[in-house]
Amino acid sequence: MTRERLYLYDTTLRDGQQTQGVQFSTAEKVTIAQMLDALGVDYIEGGWPGANPTDSAFFDAAPRTTARLTAFGMTKRAGRSAANDDVLAAVMNAGTGAVCLVGKAHDFHVTTALGVTLDENVGNIAASIAHLVEQGREALFDAEHFFDGYRANPAYALDVLRAALDAGARWVVLCDTNGGCLPHEIGRITAAVIAAGIPGDRLGIHTHNDTETAVAGSLAAIDAGARQVQGTLNGLGERCGNANLTTLIPTLLLKEPYASRFETGVTLEALTGLTRASRRLDEILNRVPLRQAPYVGASAFAHKAGLHASAILKDPATYEHVDPAVVGNARIVPMSNQAGQSNLRRRLAEAGLEVAPDDPVLGRILDVVKTREGIGYSYDTAQASFELLARAEMGRAPDFFEVKRYRVTVERRKNKYNRMVSLSEAVVVVKVDGEKKLSVSESMDEDGADRGPVNALAKALAKDLGPYSDAIADMRLVDFKVRITQGGTEAMTRVIIDSEDAQGRRWSTVGVSPNIVDASFEALLDAINWKLLRDAPRGIRVQA
Amino acid sequence: MTRERLYLYDTTLRDGQQTQGVQFSTAEKVTIAQMLDALGVDYIEGGWPGANPTDSAFFDAAPRTTARLTAFGMTKRAGRSAANDDVLAAVMNAGTGAVCLVGKAHDFHVTTALGVTLDENVGNIAASIAHLVEQGREALFDAEHFFDGYRANPAYALDVLRAALDAGARWVVLCDTNGGCLPHEIGRITAAVIAAGIPGDRLGIHTHNDTETAVAGSLAAIDAGARQVQGTLNGLGERCGNANLTTLIPTLLLKEPYASRFETGVTLEALTGLTRASRRLDEILNRVPLRQAPYVGASAFAHKAGLHASAILKDPATYEHVDPAVVGNARIVPMSNQAGQSNLRRRLAEAGLEVAPDDPVLGRILDVVKTREGIGYSYDTAQASFELLARAEMGRAPDFFEVKRYRVTVERRKNKYNRMVSLSEAVVVVKVDGEKKLSVSESMDEDGADRGPVNALAKALAKDLGPYSDAIADMRLVDFKVRITQGGTEAMTRVIIDSEDAQGRRWSTVGVSPNIVDASFEALLDAINWKLLRDAPRGIRVQA
Repeated sequence: MTRERLYLYDTTLRDGQQTQGVQFSTAEKVTIAQMLDALGVDYIEGGWPGANPTDSAFFDAAPRTTARLTAFGMTKRAGRSAANDDVLAAVMNAGTGAVCLVGKAHDFHVTTALGVTLDENVGNIAASIAHLVEQGREALFDAEHFFDGYRANPAYALDVLRAALDAGARWVVLCDTNGGCLPHEIGRITAAVIAAGIPGDRLGIHTHNDTETAVAGSLAAIDAGARQVQGTLNGLGERCGNANLTTLIPTLLLKEPYASRFETGVTLEALTGLTRASRRLDEILNRVPLRQAPYVGASAFAHKAGLHASAILKDPATYEHVDPAVVGNARIVPMSNQAGQSNLRRRLAEAGLEVAPDDPVLGRILDVVKTREGIGYSYDTAQASFELLARAEMGRAPDFFEVKRYRVTVERRKNKYNRMVSLSEAVVVVKVDGEKKLSVSESMDEDGADRGPVNALAKALAKDLGPYSDAIADMRLVDFKVRITQGGTEAMTRVIIDSEDAQGRRWSTVGVSPNIVDASFEALLDAINWKLLRDAPRGIRVQA
Repeated sequence: MTRERLYLYDTTLRDGQQTQGVQFSTAEKVTIAQMLDALGVDYIEGGWPGANPTDSAFFDAAPRTTARLTAFGMTKRAGRSAANDDVLAAVMNAGTGAVCLVGKAHDFHVTTALGVTLDENVGNIAASIAHLVEQGREALFDAEHFFDGYRANPAYALDVLRAALDAGARWVVLCDTNGGCLPHEIGRITAAVIAAGIPGDRLGIHTHNDTETAVAGSLAAIDAGARQVQGTLNGLGERCGNANLTTLIPTLLLKEPYASRFETGVTLEALTGLTRASRRLDEILNRVPLRQAPYVGASAFAHKAGLHASAILKDPATYEHVDPAVVGNARIVPMSNQAGQSNLRRRLAEAGLEVAPDDPVLGRILDVVKTREGIGYSYDTAQASFELLARAEMGRAPDFFEVKRYRVTVERRKNKYNRMVSLSEAVVVVKVDGEKKLSVSESMDEDGADRGPVNALAKALAKDLGPYSDAIADMRLVDFKVRITQGGTEAMTRVIIDSEDAQGRRWSTVGVSPNIVDASFEALLDAINWKLLRDAPRGIRVQA
């Protein structure tokens, strides 16, 4: 049986950027576009060129994708032709194969927000879409406030859709812009639109999560016949967010009636990268991943209730609606580390540490990892710190130098020009080869600007490590991430540091403390030790 | 027209406690029960007495509530009578007016997880419910895995429900225990159950959010005729959580067809306490409130897109599905590079600053915002810092006190027990009312643990602000977010601090510096100044 094609339209880079606090850089947009393309969405809406400098820069730097890169904009304004509308021209200048223009489908908005006549609005939409088609672009029309508009004036809402379709739009997208339309109503109205003669395979659905039903609303529209669904990764978006593609994609691929009925651009193999993609986006945004997130959350397959956990051991299907592995996630069953040990041996082997399957050290390492994760450590990405932790349990910890103490001072006061300036100063005392070395550094850069206490500490620590100084000379800190794992100033702070060297190695280390300086120092120490394990001069080596 | 009664059953204290990382104390359970009662739910499920010591203690200490306090447990096991089952006896001993027992409705689970015959299972359910009724309790039956069970063996699933009802259960509750059943299917099966002769006003619905459709699934069951809905505050619960009552309650009270059709125990007046209740629960759990949460999230009525923000100024109904005030929330029109002067005036008005449309200060404020956003500041969420920035441009900056200088020291060394310990110490010098005040604080908490340099600074700064000390006494830092805006230790650091006071106000401030301590200090200062602008003693006020 051939399955019907259902199209996925991602708007993480446009509507997702409307999330409060989110502002992607061009480089981040490129990374996210590549992630979306690897996943297999059909359209990637990249932003509104002209309205936002970063968006314009992204289209200039856009990666090659299998997905159709789409520029977003609005239909031409009244009183000028489509060709002479500078806002529309900026959108066209991005040069994308597809262009999506938003226009109003609700009579109240046409008169209240736009202040033009109903006929003028229809004319502007038709002329704008026709302009896209003349320029050889695939045209999409976002019918803003469609559902509210249909309830108020169904004839007008349908006229707007017909104007766009007649002008050559490939898709008209029914938008529940305010997010207030419940799934039942979305289904009913979508069915009515199709009954009124608009083909379902030209209809898209765009919902928002203001009533926590954006996913269900999208499914209701698909049930009614819509064949394009719009959403964002992790449900980013204006106010409460857009329909969450991270949830919709596995539901459409794995659950009936969708799995048998539809084909999308996402393969089951790509689906196993979903959890990773979701976490990567959070990392870019420096957000703590939502543990409870459907399919991809760390708790999505965690079985805490005693009755559930014991049944899971008999048969996972008892309390799991899908297998976590198909979305790249993992089951968490407290008290059971059966699954943990083979995973652990694989990670140790990656660090060059071979351990027999029955070695009791495996259990000890798992215990330490669990205890530390309880405090706030995270070894998902910090593989170098994980290696050092495992080595410590195996009695193979590095022993190059010992930090006896440090002190950092941050001061802010007026300088001689009566301007407030700050300065940090660090003193580090290390013992290397039986010799105590005292180093001091301040936090000024070449331009005389204060770079803060962690910078001062890093410089002081690296200043004199005796025979090891050469080995770390090519080391460079390339990223520094800080995350607070509980609320308040009395929170735990997790610092993850990414380092690089001249050989192109890149490694991540983690430090945790309520004291941010101390957490940073711990991660710095791990970074140096990991590097020395590889490059320290021969003859002076690690234990065992 | 009389409306039908729809019952709300809260299980925050039982299923909500299955959330990973959540373990309520008895005192916390009491507080939450009181919050739920003030809101107006009909049933409060308090826990499983006997299975969990805290749960037993809670029932002993249970507050008087209008809501019916309910104990949870499981139906009696095979091979003993209901009266002789010690697990059931512990549940009965809690002495609640209502008792809810869970039993299996899916034949696969009866044989796989329980290992008893199908008939034995039905017999255990009937005997257990009959036992409750004999003891004068209101009996509820949670039909576990009902939807999966109905799909596999509808006759058996219905037999289970009938056994409970015939034995005297007031309610039988259809549970989608694995969270995998989509709303359409929940609606279809609930309708089939009613068509099979089970009255809708005896039927409850209990869903989980594993496909992000728990709320929609609950609505689908209500549409089909179920008249009790179970859920939790903030959607707490096993794995991805339960149906979110914080979303369902306003939807049922405010949106059609529910608002006209149903009556619940929640009044429109109580509904205005919803946002506060939701935040209070997060506070108890020490969780950062989800900004994107429907109705109650800080971003739920935040309008970032330029087009939206300008339309909102004309009429809030253009981009809001309900009025934020009815759920005790507030509208936010954030500043960002997509917003123009009309939004700016709106934001200023919200801060009590009226500015004429043609005032040149508007252009100056926008310029400062843009320049600062270029350095790394973000005023999307940091409305309080935005207000202070605007006041400075308007010559209306607060002038309560001046920080002359500060110094923070972070030290790590061995203590007398030869263990490495760290300690921070801060000295802050402020000038208040012409008087210089020097305060010092260290970073130890009550348990003698180091909480880091920012904590020490915050404490030293708050220690003595002369006549202003009282006004900030109820201020509390509830969140602290750090973002590095460029790579390396030489990066810019953005710190956002969320503060709260006893009146339930919540405000965000931002600080940016390459020095993380300095960035934090800047955000702290803004937080205090914003609070003082509202609560400083009369007679000592702001400029102009």
